[in-house]
Amino acid sequence: MKKLINDPQSVVAESVEGFGAAHADLVQVHADPLFITRRDAPVQGKVGLVSGGGSGHEPLHAGFVGRGMLDAAVPGAVFTSPTPDQIIPATLAVDGGAGVLHIVKNYTGDVLNFETAAEMAQAEGVDIRSVLVNDDVAVEDSLYTAGRRGVGGTVLVERIAGAAAERGDSLDAVAEIAQRVNDNVRSMGVALSACTVPHAGVPSFDLTDEEIEIGIGIHGEPGRHRIAMENADGITDRLLEPILADLGASASDRVLLFVNGMGGTPASELYIVYRRARQVLEDRGLAVERSLVGNYITALEMQGASISLLKLDDDMVELWDSPVWTPALRWGV
Amino acid sequence: MKKLINDPQSVVAESVEGFGAAHADLVQVHADPLFITRRDAPVQGKVGLVSGGGSGHEPLHAGFVGRGMLDAAVPGAVFTSPTPDQIIPATLAVDGGAGVLHIVKNYTGDVLNFETAAEMAQAEGVDIRSVLVNDDVAVEDSLYTAGRRGVGGTVLVERIAGAAAERGDSLDAVAEIAQRVNDNVRSMGVALSACTVPHAGVPSFDLTDEEIEIGIGIHGEPGRHRIAMENADGITDRLLEPILADLGASASDRVLLFVNGMGGTPASELYIVYRRARQVLEDRGLAVERSLVGNYITALEMQGASISLLKLDDDMVELWDSPVWTPALRWGV
Repeated sequence: MKKLINDPQSVVAESVEGFGAAHADLVQVHADPLFITRRDAPVQGKVGLVSGGGSGHEPLHAGFVGRGMLDAAVPGAVFTSPTPDQIIPATLAVDGGAGVLHIVKNYTGDVLNFETAAEMAQAEGVDIRSVLVNDDVAVEDSLYTAGRRGVGGTVLVERIAGAAAERGDSLDAVAEIAQRVNDNVRSMGVALSACTVPHAGVPSFDLTDEEIEIGIGIHGEPGRHRIAMENADGITDRLLEPILADLGASASDRVLLFVNGMGGTPASELYIVYRRARQVLEDRGLAVERSLVGNYITALEMQGASISLLKLDDDMVELWDSPVWTPALRWGV
Repeated sequence: MKKLINDPQSVVAESVEGFGAAHADLVQVHADPLFITRRDAPVQGKVGLVSGGGSGHEPLHAGFVGRGMLDAAVPGAVFTSPTPDQIIPATLAVDGGAGVLHIVKNYTGDVLNFETAAEMAQAEGVDIRSVLVNDDVAVEDSLYTAGRRGVGGTVLVERIAGAAAERGDSLDAVAEIAQRVNDNVRSMGVALSACTVPHAGVPSFDLTDEEIEIGIGIHGEPGRHRIAMENADGITDRLLEPILADLGASASDRVLLFVNGMGGTPASELYIVYRRARQVLEDRGLAVERSLVGNYITALEMQGASISLLKLDDDMVELWDSPVWTPALRWGV
């Protein structure tokens, strides 16, 4: 195992420490228990947004802490849910009196621990809502889930709900738009190579030099099937077709096209996937009104990509375009 | 070879096409000959900045086209210099009457082709200056260079000179600060794995599972030596010591610390390197006033990282902080 780490035990703590030092203008790291908040948390009168999950998917979630997105991120060990002991203080730290929304990817550990934390925080007087992200069309149930996994759509939920909170929407309204984004986004990914969890020291699965895994999860958990290597256009079609079928997209729909890298794939390849996906969508009469291309929800050093497609409405577009100022996602003034 | 590509011959054209479609609000792709300009080029009265080089280092250079950085980027084939036939029209396209600065990484092909292009553009009446970036302390001469290679420092030259041009500085002043940044920046990198050029189809060099290459070039060309795998702190020290020795940094110097990913290394590992580098610098009394961490100058899917250290002065800090708005680097309002 070759990684730029010191000790599998200290990977998350040291990485978050470096992250906090590099972005001290935007975020604050709370060390024990570990969580990350906006520098200016809590923002009085604003709904607080908390997300979290296993580490190894960076920049998700800590890279999205800042104005117009998350108020707090709670990192677990690599590919391991954070504990209620972390989620509760993170929740309390970002409650500005308007309540807190938990954005939870649908993995069993995350769901249980966020539920427990929500009950405890509620008992302390914080109004809590939760939204479960389950956008992955690849499999109906998975190694770590009952129901569909939460993947790339999480980035879009965090961004758009974060914008609604920043606009001053109520807790119910922020929860409603987070749910609406989840209901209108579908994703699917492909792995060209496996990834190695530091603790394990060996790749999480085996792929031969001629194989790829269609429908891969962000922890390297199995997808739909393995196939022989194909060209980028063929692979893109294999990801996009199930997304379009499940989403029920039709001509004249407006969409956001998100091509995400799994961590080890060059940007140049992501743009080749984007090019094909956009062509296919436009050929079907869909309007690609917004785009996002890059490494936003990763699986350590895995080579591969995922596509997420979000059906847009006017409110989502306005929220998407509003200012966002985080370590990993920035625009607006 | 597993890559998200269709054909080694079309990698650059298709990738740039996707890039142009995804960032049509910021850039414009000119297809034949291939180059990328700011959407609003030429900006009248502003010095134009042109850079370029072999593809495979994305986001460098096209990802840095936009307000406060480059006016044009000229991509060659993967790891191959662009031709004067591309550089000349790119130069003419961004001349707003105040002249054009060429920012050239010190590789023999780039140097020759930019020189030829500069002569031709000068003959067409454009005032041209050139700055050669040669910040890599690893080796004095290399496979593709006479003298030191241009690596991570290029990103800092492009940003700070781009800010000076945006501020309205004259061609001589922009060239002077570009040179000053180059004179005050030093870099060194490490490879944990090789990369595969699409045309070649096989890795550009061999590393065993226990070896890393210290002082690697951004094309996989040899560095200083191969050593057995070490932990992140040890590797960071091996990169930082030659940089500090060559830069002649001393206590109370103000620095910008740039930890760059080679393309296949997770962000979490880059922050572990950043953490150690910052500790070492602060222990020596240096003030880390600005930071940059991420994949900014890559070698396809290579796993590894580089460190660049820039000695700052007041003017550089002011320029660094001024607004930049490109696909890959954004801040300010």
